Amino acid sequence: MFHEDLFLTNETGKRLFHEYAKNLPIIDYHCHLQPKDIYENKVFEDLGEMWLSGDHYKWRVMRTFGIEEKYITGKETSYYEKYMKFAEIMPQLAGNPIYIWCALELKRFFGIDEPLCKENAEEIYNRTKAMIRERQMTPLWCMEHCNVELVSTTEDPIDTLEYHKKLREEKKTDVKIISAFRPDKALYIEKPAFQAYIPALAQTAGMQVETFDQMMEALEARLLYFKEIGTNVSDSGIEELYWEDYTEAEIDIIFSKGIEGKKLTRQEIDKYRSCFVVRMGQLYAKHGYVMQLHIGTYQGANKSREASVGAACGFDCLDDSTPVKSVGEVLDRLTKLGQLPKTILYPLDGMKIEAWAVLAAGFCEGPVRAKVQLGAPWWFNDHVYGIKRQFEACANLYPVALSVGMLTDSRSFLSYPRFELYRRVLCDYLGELVERHEYFSGEEELKKIVENVCYYNAKEFFEL
Amino acid sequence: MFHEDLFLTNETGKRLFHEYAKNLPIIDYHCHLQPKDIYENKVFEDLGEMWLSGDHYKWRVMRTFGIEEKYITGKETSYYEKYMKFAEIMPQLAGNPIYIWCALELKRFFGIDEPLCKENAEEIYNRTKAMIRERQMTPLWCMEHCNVELVSTTEDPIDTLEYHKKLREEKKTDVKIISAFRPDKALYIEKPAFQAYIPALAQTAGMQVETFDQMMEALEARLLYFKEIGTNVSDSGIEELYWEDYTEAEIDIIFSKGIEGKKLTRQEIDKYRSCFVVRMGQLYAKHGYVMQLHIGTYQGANKSREASVGAACGFDCLDDSTPVKSVGEVLDRLTKLGQLPKTILYPLDGMKIEAWAVLAAGFCEGPVRAKVQLGAPWWFNDHVYGIKRQFEACANLYPVALSVGMLTDSRSFLSYPRFELYRRVLCDYLGELVERHEYFSGEEELKKIVENVCYYNAKEFFEL
Amino acid sequence: MFHEDLFLTNETGKRLFHEYAKNLPIIDYHCHLQPKDIYENKVFEDLGEMWLSGDHYKWRVMRTFGIEEKYITGKETSYYEKYMKFAEIMPQLAGNPIYIWCALELKRFFGIDEPLCKENAEEIYNRTKAMIRERQMTPLWCMEHCNVELVSTTEDPIDTLEYHKKLREEKKTDVKIISAFRPDKALYIEKPAFQAYIPALAQTAGMQVETFDQMMEALEARLLYFKEIGTNVSDSGIEELYWEDYTEAEIDIIFSKGIEGKKLTRQEIDKYRSCFVVRMGQLYAKHGYVMQLHIGTYQGANKSREASVGAACGFDCLDDSTPVKSVGEVLDRLTKLGQLPKTILYPLDGMKIEAWAVLAAGFCEGPVRAKVQLGAPWWFNDHVYGIKRQFEACANLYPVALSVGMLTDSRSFLSYPRFELYRRVLCDYLGELVERHEYFSGEEELKKIVENVCYYNAKEFFEL
Repeated sequence: MFHEDLFLTNETGKRLFHEYAKNLPIIDYHCHLQPKDIYENKVFEDLGEMWLSGDHYKWRVMRTFGIEEKYITGKETSYYEKYMKFAEIMPQLAGNPIYIWCALELKRFFGIDEPLCKENAEEIYNRTKAMIRERQMTPLWCMEHCNVELVSTTEDPIDTLEYHKKLREEKKTDVKIISAFRPDKALYIEKPAFQAYIPALAQTAGMQVETFDQMMEALEARLLYFKEIGTNVSDSGIEELYWEDYTEAEIDIIFSKGIEGKKLTRQEIDKYRSCFVVRMGQLYAKHGYVMQLHIGTYQGANKSREASVGAACGFDCLDDSTPVKSVGEVLDRLTKLGQLPKTILYPLDGMKIEAWAVLAAGFCEGPVRAKVQLGAPWWFNDHVYGIKRQFEACANLYPVALSVGMLTDSRSFLSYPRFELYRRVLCDYLGELVERHEYFSGEEELKKIVENVCYYNAKEFFEL
Repeated sequence: MFHEDLFLTNETGKRLFHEYAKNLPIIDYHCHLQPKDIYENKVFEDLGEMWLSGDHYKWRVMRTFGIEEKYITGKETSYYEKYMKFAEIMPQLAGNPIYIWCALELKRFFGIDEPLCKENAEEIYNRTKAMIRERQMTPLWCMEHCNVELVSTTEDPIDTLEYHKKLREEKKTDVKIISAFRPDKALYIEKPAFQAYIPALAQTAGMQVETFDQMMEALEARLLYFKEIGTNVSDSGIEELYWEDYTEAEIDIIFSKGIEGKKLTRQEIDKYRSCFVVRMGQLYAKHGYVMQLHIGTYQGANKSREASVGAACGFDCLDDSTPVKSVGEVLDRLTKLGQLPKTILYPLDGMKIEAWAVLAAGFCEGPVRAKVQLGAPWWFNDHVYGIKRQFEACANLYPVALSVGMLTDSRSFLSYPRFELYRRVLCDYLGELVERHEYFSGEEELKKIVENVCYYNAKEFFEL
Repeated sequence: MFHEDLFLTNETGKRLFHEYAKNLPIIDYHCHLQPKDIYENKVFEDLGEMWLSGDHYKWRVMRTFGIEEKYITGKETSYYEKYMKFAEIMPQLAGNPIYIWCALELKRFFGIDEPLCKENAEEIYNRTKAMIRERQMTPLWCMEHCNVELVSTTEDPIDTLEYHKKLREEKKTDVKIISAFRPDKALYIEKPAFQAYIPALAQTAGMQVETFDQMMEALEARLLYFKEIGTNVSDSGIEELYWEDYTEAEIDIIFSKGIEGKKLTRQEIDKYRSCFVVRMGQLYAKHGYVMQLHIGTYQGANKSREASVGAACGFDCLDDSTPVKSVGEVLDRLTKLGQLPKTILYPLDGMKIEAWAVLAAGFCEGPVRAKVQLGAPWWFNDHVYGIKRQFEACANLYPVALSVGMLTDSRSFLSYPRFELYRRVLCDYLGELVERHEYFSGEEELKKIVENVCYYNAKEFFEL
């Protein structure tokens, strides 16, 4: 049965979680929810839709069990059928975060204590379906039920933010909903989409874009547009970054080749990326944005399956090639320019986080607290082991107490209990320090650390 | 004294091990035993021979203690003398797997509970020598004593499998003994041995080998030959792999240079390796073989000592250079061709296993369960820390419950208790999940996980 | 309150620490103290000076908290003011080694049990100030108070060792004070300082230096000079090393370009570094020096802040690029020449220590015990997590019992309690092995391991 002392192995940790952490509001400053879904706010069909309509974590694990693709992403299969297939593998997911996420979701949204399995799947399906209808469970219901204070979705600069505006105008909820500015399509000059993207950006920004500088102006215009809905968060998904020094003249030539769809050399791509990340950083600093860099994805590793099933469907992997120094050069360049924005570094390669924690600390400077941060363990690191490793390995290199804490990075409206999981691991970690006599500054200071990491640091850092 | 609760720190783990794991048969689907030794099945001379005749793990650790080489690999020194030198360092091997392997071997093969040390070395030598003679302890005796069901040795494609055939014909044992097909000599085109190898392969396969395609045909012929003795396992030892795209025409030219012994560029070597691994993968898929890739050895790092003492004598190290993407390209290419065989990835760099677990999961697809697997922690990772790390770090990325479990990778007939060690760590790990309330699907499901990982998954995956 | 069972979570560990480890003398074979400070032996002004006059670890963490630079390194600010700012953040440093280092220093030097915080900072400042004056606390007082037997500072080959000589002549202390020979300025041929360095070296050595061989002769002369004050330790700080094969003729050309201040290619730099490290290794072997290689720093990552504040002020980070094979080539070359000195490898990238432990073991050979060692976890790895990881991960690959143990690598005279921390973690680790029944060779052998790692191994290895 589900147990309220989940992950809590010591008395201090239990007290910290139950007394201070549990009931704090949630600030989810980075996710991939669709604003349209939030706005339309439809009642969910069933637990199958809630769990399996877009969650590539679950799709991926289903594939490892050899389940046929039609029960995973097949359009011809009902959510009920998919749910039943998924329920069957649940008891064999020992140690996998999906096991405990689902358990937490069943408990927190539906009050279900028993472990899901083949035998009770039908009954739980029916029970939850009735509750969904009875309580009229919708995206906003989920957020409000979980005490969510802010959500930041992620949009492209050319997005009109139509639903963000409507949500605001119609005052549909007290949850603050902003959008992280994500200019990835302008970053990936070598990808086929770039050629079509630039005219679209020009049109949206209402200006000519024939040079790199003009593109940056257009992006700045859009940055200001995003700011109007209250956004001060940006985000970049950087597959890999190899710093390569550049001149403005070189960038102009590379940009011209890019919009003409000409093939670029590896060195040209690297020069362009290096320049683009620095220039965006300058804009973020200028307009008071936080710069978030997600680094090290191996996008669509399984290209043929991605081609048939789709992008972001569970075929991405983890790249281990970006040198720490490449990002160091970006930070150094921005520091030199006096234009280093508040920055959060999210290396996907969790096996190297220490190098990134060290890097972040090397660029901190007053008067901002924790100006350059090591971000929350995300995606392939979002689990007890990854979270605990980050506390244990990085507290030594970058004060845990300064972290802006957790985010969901999720495509599911049920994923807020991931904050609970993170908070439990944090409290257990602090409790262990106390029990090993490694920390003895007392309850008030512990409370402060817990509350700051779970809530107040994010509030301060993002100026909410 | 040896304790039956070794490694078991919680009650659930103890129960799981003693009730379900302990007595399951052993499937050792990858080792380096000599079929000739198995066939001849001679009674061992003494514990010195059993332990020190070919085990480079022990040789290596003896060198760290400054023991003279003549007591390690010296031909002029008796096994008794070597054993006495080795026994002396045993008490100082705290934390080293050799300490606990030896303790388990003394306990399981000879019923000895006390820790080996200089003081009791002589007495234990005599006691074990008497037991070896009395019980007529031979290679097959060891296997049968440990409830071994299958052993897969590792042979080159040109091997005649003489002893495998004799073992089969003479029905000397109920242990099934197969051979993993290991075409490394055809992979390492840049090594001096390549030139002599190709004619030898041609002769064995009974065909002309003057082109790359002919070589692949010859290898396919040998693959079928291996299949006759019941083999469906292959194995590649890949020092490092840097994916480099290639054309058939390029490969033909590179192959010609190779058989002429001409010097190849790094890029040519990489093209050849990339192509070779893909082409072998296609053959494995075609003939129902499991593809095992052992990646990341730094062969003969200490070249001068290897030159004087020999290969595989403890002078190899660990290479940290193969990018995950290089193997990703191989898997992607095979997926695209519809010819991805069942695959097990064994990165030697245990500090990067998460990236490999993620990669394996990204290429899984039905209807096979766990089609691409992360292999058991081997060689420098075959110890409590390495095994536990694999469970903790990778359960999050690839379901532990699907693993085909342990193997010995060993050159010693006494090494089967490594399965016991692995099973203990598995049960302890699962017990910890239960005690932290992180898993609560009940005893029957835990039993299933334990039994599958320890035995049934391998049986199913290798179609035994 | 400070607790004497700090870090000790099991009974065996407690016994090992309190009975065997606690009172052993300290051999600090690598630090960055200034011999002038030791010689002048001035009474400290206050705890502010003791803690914040040169310790970049503390400066760095203060920056993460957004403290203004003037309270960190500002010349216009008093040590009292800096101390007060630092005291304020202490309670928020949970998990950071600085928290526990400071706690240990307050306890061991001043008998203070309570945790430092804003509220008691003033009172503790005054109390410690009085004690410093009363006890006349000086550098040598600190060393003697901590039972330090030997200290090795680190100097450039052209250093006159004036203060080392005076300390010796005037017999100011029983602590043996030697100097590690650190020829980094001769290694970094591409840096601006090289051009001025070579004539200075020539002058100090009293010989002409116009060729690479002459430079090596001059360095050898200085090596002998250092030997006169009792030194047999060297040290190299290697940012990154990419092995590149070279010929003598190439090195001569590269050297000429270097002294002329010409720009060198990456390949030329790599050839020079490869050659230099091998040639220094030969000299160390010839003259009975231990070779220490500190590998993988990202010097002055934050270049603009380093330019304004200074080098070694907390702007360095961690580089993850040196391949293990590059150092493997150095060790192999020296082995082949029969001139491999005793060597200690210190990779800064603690996430890769296993690869380095494996490498070290691959080059060990009799009759020296532990001829090539994995060094103590230093700098960004000098904390409980880093130390414990080294024991757990590397005991499997390189016997813990053979380690020469801890060092401070410090610029602070108060840092000797880091030995206490290391010893506690060692004893706790060994205790865990015992409690998991993974080690059962008994108390006498455990005692031997503890005493060797904490003291006797260093004594033997450095031939003290």
